[in-house]
Amino acid sequence: MTTEVKSGPRQRLLDTAAALAYREGVGVGVDALCKAAGVSKRSMYQLFESKDALLAASLESRATRFAALFLPPPDSGRSPRERILDVFRQVEAQAGVQEYRGCPYLAVQVELKDEDHPASRVARRVKEQLIDFFRTEAASGGASDPDLLARQLALVFDGASARAGIKADDLAGLLEPTLAALLDAAGVR
Amino acid sequence: MTTEVKSGPRQRLLDTAAALAYREGVGVGVDALCKAAGVSKRSMYQLFESKDALLAASLESRATRFAALFLPPPDSGRSPRERILDVFRQVEAQAGVQEYRGCPYLAVQVELKDEDHPASRVARRVKEQLIDFFRTEAASGGASDPDLLARQLALVFDGASARAGIKADDLAGLLEPTLAALLDAAGVR
Repeated sequence: MTTEVKSGPRQRLLDTAAALAYREGVGVGVDALCKAAGVSKRSMYQLFESKDALLAASLESRATRFAALFLPPPDSGRSPRERILDVFRQVEAQAGVQEYRGCPYLAVQVELKDEDHPASRVARRVKEQLIDFFRTEAASGGASDPDLLARQLALVFDGASARAGIKADDLAGLLEPTLAALLDAAGVR
Repeated sequence: MTTEVKSGPRQRLLDTAAALAYREGVGVGVDALCKAAGVSKRSMYQLFESKDALLAASLESRATRFAALFLPPPDSGRSPRERILDVFRQVEAQAGVQEYRGCPYLAVQVELKDEDHPASRVARRVKEQLIDFFRTEAASGGASDPDLLARQLALVFDGASARAGIKADDLAGLLEPTLAALLDAAGVR
């Protein structure tokens, strides 16, 4: 016998907002969100100040999963170069998923067009963790300019995610030589 | 004495749709579009089948300007490497504009999340011209794999546009070394 643990209205709203905004965009309406989550609008507004606040919280709630998906554990025992390449192997794997629509944090910022929106601020913070990881690994790997390499890797991450998300490129055979050129030029062996 | 030539309702709708979608996103409503263009909804629907059709036509109407902005003229007399670099000098210059929100064609595709939408199809076609330019110059410049280099340059174009558009990177000092690494690795001197 299995025991089904039903998540509460708060968690259902967070999960639904993350899923619907990713699939349909941040313009998804409050009515549609509440209906899909099985929560009344009254309850939603008791739990969250606004749709914007719900959207921001839903992105925040996925941050741990995002980090676990892309960032190798600290004790992975691989070289900085390999640890950086691991992130992009994951990007390439994600691109093969039918429902893939690119990096959710990039998409939200592109769609909102407002860097002061609460959801944009969460997205920027989550992506800063990724860039911090790149910078740390670049420095450990002896990059001539770790900050420059981190910015280059962020550019490749977002460019690859975006192009795969809009189905303009399947990334096959693209990322490995691109990263090799950048890592070689930075002196990360 | 100056003679003011007022554009007709069709052109006003095209210009308004391009400007508002770029600034606020594709979710901008028909009422807001018509009001800003000074055109009745009735007239809009006589001129365009739907808001989607208007959006697609507005992107199409900017394609020539986009090409003129980014693609050097055929007789520019510069080397393929310099002609490729010219495109990205323009990207960096655009990123410095306060109202810059990234590549409008990428943004529309990210926002619509539907590669079959008429506006996504126009956007993809316009960007294909850019990739064709990259491929042709890569081949002329002796790239070991012109198709790979063209995909890499498209990735950098979209990654740079997106990151500058969301104000995550001002691109200063970023693109020149990134392109140098990719062009050197491809053997384009």
